[in-house]
This record gives sequence, structure tokens and C-alpha cells, in this order.
Amino acid sequence: MKILVANLGSTSFKYRLFDMTDEKLLARGGVERIGSDKSPCTVKAGSVSEEAVQSVPDHAVAVRLCLKQLADPKLNCLKSPAELAAIGFKAVHAKGMTGVQRVDERVLQAMEAYNDVAPAHNPPYVRAMRLLARELPEIPLVAAFETGFHETIAPAQRLYAVPVEWAEKHGIQRHGFHGASHRYIAERTAQLLKNPAARIISCHLGGSSSLCAIRDGRSVASSMGMSPQTGLPQNNRVGDFDPFALPDIMRATSKTLEQVLDDLANRSGLLGISGFNDLRDIEKAAAAGDAKAKLAIDVFVAAVRHNLGAYLVMLGGADAIVFTGGIGENSAPMRSAICADLDWLGVKLDVQANAAVKGEAPIHAADSKTQLWTMPTNEELIVARQAKALLMK
Amino acid sequence: MKILVANLGSTSFKYRLFDMTDEKLLARGGVERIGSDKSPCTVKAGSVSEEAVQSVPDHAVAVRLCLKQLADPKLNCLKSPAELAAIGFKAVHAKGMTGVQRVDERVLQAMEAYNDVAPAHNPPYVRAMRLLARELPEIPLVAAFETGFHETIAPAQRLYAVPVEWAEKHGIQRHGFHGASHRYIAERTAQLLKNPAARIISCHLGGSSSLCAIRDGRSVASSMGMSPQTGLPQNNRVGDFDPFALPDIMRATSKTLEQVLDDLANRSGLLGISGFNDLRDIEKAAAAGDAKAKLAIDVFVAAVRHNLGAYLVMLGGADAIVFTGGIGENSAPMRSAICADLDWLGVKLDVQANAAVKGEAPIHAADSKTQLWTMPTNEELIVARQAKALLMK
Repeated sequence: MKILVANLGSTSFKYRLFDMTDEKLLARGGVERIGSDKSPCTVKAGSVSEEAVQSVPDHAVAVRLCLKQLADPKLNCLKSPAELAAIGFKAVHAKGMTGVQRVDERVLQAMEAYNDVAPAHNPPYVRAMRLLARELPEIPLVAAFETGFHETIAPAQRLYAVPVEWAEKHGIQRHGFHGASHRYIAERTAQLLKNPAARIISCHLGGSSSLCAIRDGRSVASSMGMSPQTGLPQNNRVGDFDPFALPDIMRATSKTLEQVLDDLANRSGLLGISGFNDLRDIEKAAAAGDAKAKLAIDVFVAAVRHNLGAYLVMLGGADAIVFTGGIGENSAPMRSAICADLDWLGVKLDVQANAAVKGEAPIHAADSKTQLWTMPTNEELIVARQAKALLMK
Repeated sequence: MKILVANLGSTSFKYRLFDMTDEKLLARGGVERIGSDKSPCTVKAGSVSEEAVQSVPDHAVAVRLCLKQLADPKLNCLKSPAELAAIGFKAVHAKGMTGVQRVDERVLQAMEAYNDVAPAHNPPYVRAMRLLARELPEIPLVAAFETGFHETIAPAQRLYAVPVEWAEKHGIQRHGFHGASHRYIAERTAQLLKNPAARIISCHLGGSSSLCAIRDGRSVASSMGMSPQTGLPQNNRVGDFDPFALPDIMRATSKTLEQVLDDLANRSGLLGISGFNDLRDIEKAAAAGDAKAKLAIDVFVAAVRHNLGAYLVMLGGADAIVFTGGIGENSAPMRSAICADLDWLGVKLDVQANAAVKGEAPIHAADSKTQLWTMPTNEELIVARQAKALLMK
């Protein structure tokens, strides 16, 4: 069973193709600059790479082009486009719906209902998925929602203290996100530790960041709440914020609620504090003495440590703390700042291992009670597994 | 120097009168049901109590009546109303202003500017203070803001990840509240521990609740943010909430932003989840098997423990965790739930001491690394000290 897992941007389509009989990654590729006259369409399968440049007006044309490339006998990935069992999507958020779903009008409408809860994520996904459903009706589309892994969070952690009918009737509660990534970290770490009951704190730190507390392979808490704008500061999204500041900032800036929420979703986070959108630029500027860049890092580290402390208490200590995502895997100074002065809790980095690590590896000191790891996540594999399970039901 | 510290409700005026030469509490009293035909006006000074019942149309009349009672030679509190050096107020929040301030039009306008940031607190205070300033111009009025103690919180903890000018120009940041209470706990605990550098987590748990992390006598973090509606769930106020849920709940309930914020400020918190406004009723209902009451307690305990963990990491462990406020001092089951399974962190209750404690006393086990205390707070004494310091400048 071959499943293609798609990663949609508003003008890009990236994918990985898996053979789910043995979970082998057959190929990866995609199309950039969709809508332009010259869209590069690349594919890499084993040692073979191909690139075509042509006009790709929309995501449906992009997918057809990729499938045609993959069916090229030189690549040996698909005998024909019809061999593809499904396209899986790491979908973010839908009203009254989670888990893994065959994409139909009901699913698309549930996602549209949360367009303003997940403004950076839902609109481009819904647009592209609707187009593909219409233009490629022969290929099953499967949405694996980011909230699915967090269905196991207990009401004590999940509920906001709002009128009870807001949660029961209207779904106003902490949903949690990055489910595919945290699920992968949970499974892989339990395997490495040979302990399915392991207490794990998964730190997915990147353009978008969240912490997840895991016990017995299940999510017991997520730093993200009702929307993917909450929790830790994101690259350009705010993180936790007080709704009672809204009337004041609306008056002060003469903006509507919609405009202020748009600022919080697009011009806040690390960008809002520092002026830079990417942590690599922020770290460079901070090293060069930029006070606002330094401050953005301090705010981010404080927010990570805040949740780390909360989850250590919740889990009664951790068997492993795992760093993944662009920042989590690649920023040794960030990991070092996050783990600073935690020896008294049995959490101790190996300074040299932390500085030198690449890929999946332990970075804790020999006398650390909690294991510390960096680990590339594999959200696409999780989505492919979930799509396969749905198709086989 | 005699200072009266006022606690204003919309139809009540309660006070404590201090002689600040030796910080002696001379009397306490107040007026209830202001605006009714029969308002009881009580005073207690040492062993002498008095009660008068008469028509008290507003707060100015209430204050005059109390001063007249206090000047009664039988009570021996004030030679005449003119002997009063000031009335001090535990004021909550003012835009662009904190610390201790002589109440004037500038202060009143700064408080009015935050009427919708602190909707339960600011409007009744401003109304009463404006009336007293007009009707009793001979008595200096001093406002000690609840945010003052938290001025020492570092930017990494204080800032939201919002556009930088929102913080710099418009004051959108975490301010923290319950400053008088946490300051008292900080000073008294340092004294009891004979350690001015003590790391303290002050848990003010009552109708309104917050945690404060304290080091070297200074606040380094507060669970409350821009407004006193944030942080832990309050009796009828929401605690932390995701602003990106607002458009969805506005649509679902056909309410305006103002109406939804009013729900969050008045019909949420423990009341929203359980239907009960007072923790004593919630504990009773939970014991009788009421699932929603049990859930409200679980949500509250989870929120307290979340911040407790965060502050333990921030402080590198705590020398003392102190419980104060109506819930903190009086609910042994709540303290027990909050401290459950923290032995591995060196935090261990003495079960019997916790069950039996009254007033200021330690409740930790002999082998607990962190001292645990219950402690009645004394916000009025702090306000009186602050008012005295301002008057003597």
C-alpha cells in the first residue's frame, strides 16, 4: 500500500511517498511557486533526482505532475498514478472533529468553521483539499488532525474555567496541536528506552513550538490550547495572551477585534519582540548585541521552562526530555538555556554531547536521572500510518 | 500616625485602623448595605464593640459615620476625626501607573482607563474614591496598587510576545496582582525562616487566587497577567484563556465581545464549571458526589500545581511554600491535593499538622526540604505601611 503524505503551503506542495508494507520512504519531492509561470517540480527517490520546471497554476496540477514524475520507470516508485492508495494530510483543526478522517464535505466544512481559530493553517489547507477532491476524485484524501494525539488529556488539564456549556456544546477547550510530531516522539522514545510506560516531555521547538507531557504513550498535557496561537511564543504567533487586554489595545490602536487578532496571529511571537521571524537570525543578532533579539530568546526560554516545570510536577519527574523541530534539534545554546540549573531535579546535560549532536542521539550526562535526547521527528510517517489504518478499517 | 485602610465593595465599606507608630491594630469595623434604609455600622476596638443601624446613602456618609464612631471616647481610638492621617486603599490597577500614589484626578483617570481590564474591581473603587475625595477633602487618600510588588518581575517573565510597541507604548504586559498579600507573605516568611534571600512560593488562594514566586524578598513571577482575570481560575473569573476562542464563542452564542468578556469576568471560573461560587459549597457538593463540583476542584488544583512546578524550576527549588487566603488557610484537602506526590522534589506535608492547623503554623513533615506553612495574610498592614511611607516622604 503506497501512501503519499502532503505538506501544503499556500504556494507550495511538498510530499513524502511511503510504501506502507514496510514503512519504506520511496521518494520525497514537491512543487514550489505554484501559480507562477516557472514552478520547479522536484523528486528524489533513493539516489535518483529529477527536476522539471513548468507552469503549475494550482495544487491539483501540482499533484498530477508529481504523480506523473513518480510513475517514471527510472524512479521505480509507482507503476502508475492509480497505484497510490491515498494522500494523507497533517490537518490542523476542525470544529467538533478530530482523529483521522476521510476528507469529504463534512470534514471540509468542520475545518472552515475554525478558519479564524487557526487562521495560518486552515484556509490554505481547505482550499487545496477542496480543489484536489474535485480534480482528483479517484484518489482518497485522508486528514489526520493534529489534535488527535491529545484526545487522552484529562478534563482537569483540558478544560478552561468557562461556563460549562461553552465546552460541552461549543467545543471551547484546550485541544493541543503538533499531535503527529509528539506521537512520533512518544513512540520512538518508548522504543529507545525500552519502556512503554515512560514519562516523556516532548519539546517540539521550531517555527511553531509546543511541549507535550506523555505517560504510557499517551498525551496528558499540551502547552497549546484552543488554538495553535497559544502556549509558547511561536515565530510570528503570540503564545499565551490575556483576552482582557483586547479592549484596551483595540482602543489604543483604533483597530477592530479582527485586526488585533490578525496582529496576534501574524506580527507577534518572536517576530513581534525582536523584529526577526527566524530563530537563526535572532540568535545571530543576539550574539551581535541586539537587545531585543536577546529578549526574544529570554522570553522563549522562560516559556519553555515554565511548561517544563509544570510537566515535571505533573509526571512526578521525567524518564526523558526530548528535543525536536528546527530549534529543538539544531540549537545547542537553546537546549543549554532550557536545561540550565536543573541538576537538583536530576536533569543534567552533557555539555560536549549537546554541542556536537546531530540527528537522533542522547545528550545527557552520565549521572543525569532523566535522559535527554535530540530526535528528528517524522510527522509524515505518523500520518501515513494513520491513513493506512483508516483505509484498512 | 493613625491610618485607616479601607476595603470597598459596591454596597459595603470595611476598614482597619492602625496606629503606625507601633503598627498596632486599634479597631476594625465598617458599614454594610450602603444605600439601604437600615445600614448596620459596626466597630470593634479591643474588647469594646458598638453597632449602630441607620440610613447610609453612600460611601462618604459611611466613612463619616465610622470616623464619628471611632472618635467615641469609650473606644479610645481617635481623639477626633481630624486625627486620621490618611485613608489607604488596596487599589487594583491603573493604566501607566503602579506603586503607591496620593489619590488625585490623575490617579482616578488612570484607574478609569482600566475599567474594562479590571471590571470587577476598578469601577466601584473609582466611584467611591471620587466621592470621598469630593466629600471629605480634609482626609488624604492613598492608593497602594496591587501591581506594585510585581514591578521587580524581569522582562523575560513579564512580556507577552506581542508587537514591541504594545508593551512599550500601551502597557500590554503581565502586571501581576495580590501584591499586598504576597508582599506580606514574603516579609513574614523571610522573618520566620531568618533568611532574607529565601526562595518562597506564596499561594494566595481564595475567592481570587494567584501564585507568586519570590526571591530575595522580591516578586519574580505572578500567575496573573495583564488583568486580574488571568492565571488560576477565580471564583467567578476565568483564569487563563485563549483569545482566539472569542470569535467562535461570539458566533456560537450571538454575543458581542463585551458580552463574552462579561461572561468570562462574572460567570466563569469555579462558578462556570460547577455552578457554585464558593469553594466551601463546591467541596461540600463534591463530597456528596457532584461530578461538576469535583471537576472544578480538579481544574483548580491542576492550575495551582502547573504554576507550582513552573516556579520550582524558576527558583531552583523553594525554601518555603506558603498557603494564605480563604482557601489556602482553611482547606486542608486542597493543600493536600496541591502537595500530593511532591516528595521527590523535597516537598512533603505532615498529614496531621495539615489537618489540624489554625492560623500561622508550619505543616511540613520533619524530612521535607521545603518548609510548608499556612499563614493569615495582612494586606491592610502592608497598605498602612505604604501609605505611611508616602506621607513621610
